[in-house]
Amino acid sequence: MTLVPRIKVLGFWLAIGSFIGLLSGSASALFLVLLEWATLTRNTNEVIVYFLPVAGLLMGWILHRWGQSVIRGTNLVVDTIWQGGPQIPLRLAPMVMLGTVWTHLFGGSAGREGTAVQMGASIADGVLYALKIPEKYRQELICAGVAGGFGSVFGTPIAGMIFGMEFVVLGRLRYRAFAPCLAAAIVGDWTCHAWGVGHAAYPVLGDLSLEPILMGKWLVFAAAMALATVGFIELTHLIKAHLGRWVQHPALRMFIGGVLVVFLWKVVGTSQYLGLGVPTILSAFEEPGLGAQVFALKLIFTAITLGAGFLGGEVTPLFFIGAALGSVLSGVLGIPVEYGAGVGLAAVFAAASNAPLALSVMAAELLGIHVLPHVMLVCFVAYILTGHRSIYSAQRVGLFKS
Amino acid sequence: MTLVPRIKVLGFWLAIGSFIGLLSGSASALFLVLLEWATLTRNTNEVIVYFLPVAGLLMGWILHRWGQSVIRGTNLVVDTIWQGGPQIPLRLAPMVMLGTVWTHLFGGSAGREGTAVQMGASIADGVLYALKIPEKYRQELICAGVAGGFGSVFGTPIAGMIFGMEFVVLGRLRYRAFAPCLAAAIVGDWTCHAWGVGHAAYPVLGDLSLEPILMGKWLVFAAAMALATVGFIELTHLIKAHLGRWVQHPALRMFIGGVLVVFLWKVVGTSQYLGLGVPTILSAFEEPGLGAQVFALKLIFTAITLGAGFLGGEVTPLFFIGAALGSVLSGVLGIPVEYGAGVGLAAVFAAASNAPLALSVMAAELLGIHVLPHVMLVCFVAYILTGHRSIYSAQRVGLFKS
Repeated sequence: MTLVPRIKVLGFWLAIGSFIGLLSGSASALFLVLLEWATLTRNTNEVIVYFLPVAGLLMGWILHRWGQSVIRGTNLVVDTIWQGGPQIPLRLAPMVMLGTVWTHLFGGSAGREGTAVQMGASIADGVLYALKIPEKYRQELICAGVAGGFGSVFGTPIAGMIFGMEFVVLGRLRYRAFAPCLAAAIVGDWTCHAWGVGHAAYPVLGDLSLEPILMGKWLVFAAAMALATVGFIELTHLIKAHLGRWVQHPALRMFIGGVLVVFLWKVVGTSQYLGLGVPTILSAFEEPGLGAQVFALKLIFTAITLGAGFLGGEVTPLFFIGAALGSVLSGVLGIPVEYGAGVGLAAVFAAASNAPLALSVMAAELLGIHVLPHVMLVCFVAYILTGHRSIYSAQRVGLFKS
Repeated sequence: MTLVPRIKVLGFWLAIGSFIGLLSGSASALFLVLLEWATLTRNTNEVIVYFLPVAGLLMGWILHRWGQSVIRGTNLVVDTIWQGGPQIPLRLAPMVMLGTVWTHLFGGSAGREGTAVQMGASIADGVLYALKIPEKYRQELICAGVAGGFGSVFGTPIAGMIFGMEFVVLGRLRYRAFAPCLAAAIVGDWTCHAWGVGHAAYPVLGDLSLEPILMGKWLVFAAAMALATVGFIELTHLIKAHLGRWVQHPALRMFIGGVLVVFLWKVVGTSQYLGLGVPTILSAFEEPGLGAQVFALKLIFTAITLGAGFLGGEVTPLFFIGAALGSVLSGVLGIPVEYGAGVGLAAVFAAASNAPLALSVMAAELLGIHVLPHVMLVCFVAYILTGHRSIYSAQRVGLFKS
């Protein structure tokens, strides 16, 4: 292909990617504002958490009635990229956004990225159909929506871009989607900031030499992260499978999940495991004395919330689990606590979503460049040890881990 | 594959990758020390530059006699990864190292990464044959050698790792080589530092919002970078082709190349275009008034040096060209000068080697994380606009740029 048509194609990708970034970044901004409101409202009126079972019942009924696509969530996005199919419904975007805010308002333990990814994908598919863009560009456009959503909701554009290229197929990076993912992620991040919406600031890590003894420690660390990841994935599947067998109606399942979360909440006697849990993540960078039960409890809270069918994502709870576990391990292994927390933060989600490259870059975008070799080593080893498991059951295996 | 065999395979890859990193990092350390010596010797005795033609004649004769593999250089590495073939000769490592030091001692304008990549690859292939490792692991091991060499010679391990996975095939990333490349790059970098050998320190860039007007500026910037890249590749090819047609013996070609470099050196009346040119690269971060001829002259010096057959690499001269051009463009376009120089630094080599991801990460490792979205945008657009050109003629096209 000679220069002029190449410029045209590049221009097309950058323009359409930017447009998708503009929309998905705006959606992320609105979503973050609502989430902030929900978190604040819950924190100042904790009695609201008692209504989680009822909130679940109501949401479950609505989802069952109108939201089959919402229930399939990120798996629907992966399936559509992979095998085509009907348009990802545009109503998915508002439904999953409001559903996630609903989860957080009543204290479910969930994240954000699933929501941002699904909003981005449904917006991108909407753009494709609205502008009558040929079907052959569809996969790349949906990837761009994912990149725009992920990049803007965390303020990490390049991690978003790589996530959009990496998460669909295990062990493969879609270079074909490079241009639209890049444009969507950068414009998405800028758009979110242009709306005046910022992100949690993490500490910037200082330089730390990666010498052989530390490499050995990181291997042990990575094995522990893989174990936590497997524990999370298996527990969530177990809860989903058993609840699904025992309880017919999804609304009832969410009611039971809500009851369990409220029960646990009262038993542990702290609210730190509800919602996103950003304050605990930040404190993991400071105190190695966080307690070994902290990561385990967050794991259980999140597995119940998501296993029961509440909407949301996995990133922030898995950040919590990884950072809390990493913080504790840093004391045991003799690693600087901010490094233990920072590397752990990225490793569990990297392994759970099979996106070691995206999450390593994300850690660097959040914590500074010095973390990069450390986090790459741990993310990759944890990703291998986790095997062919994934929080996205629809994810394809492009390369067998061996 | 279940857990125990997976751990065994992972352990094998990490161990063998670390071993390759140890060797290639040591080779890089020795190489950097010799290079420092050569640069210092030349700077303090500039009369030595007059001997460049004779030095070329001698080197050309030796290469013609004993060094066919050295002449094929990085292309031999790419071909071997791609299609197998006989062992990459172990003597390639010392020959290319000494040959490159020779080039720099007498003032040829060349770089280092070709040398480091070829040393790493020949060491890795040597390890494969020495330890009788099955042939089926060969591609990944050679990639690891490349990663170890590249990562250690620049002190950018993760860029080295990604380069080892990215440079063989245009538009594809070899996930299969992830583990050995990661281990080789990290251990290689550590080894080089453990020998007490450091790297040039670049300025750390502050935060800069990537807003739409700046995005537009970067597109223009990227087009200029692509133009410089195409100019460099085409001029080098032209010199190589014409010299090859007119002058039969390679030693005589290098003699003529040497005469041309000396002639140019006297005409321009400065020594800043000889050798690596690190001081000028660093000054590009400070003064936008570097002059538009600076990048062009370095381009010509380097194209003559490498086109005539002198040994060395392309990275540092292309860093020079990109940083100098970027510095000038920063004044024209209204971009902070350190951003113009820093992004330009990575963009020309990214486009010339078809490794936009590796070079973006390299820029982040050298200049701090804030440069990442900017450099990713420019590297990728320049990479697309450069078309199916490459400084490595053996590089395969895995994905047509369109």
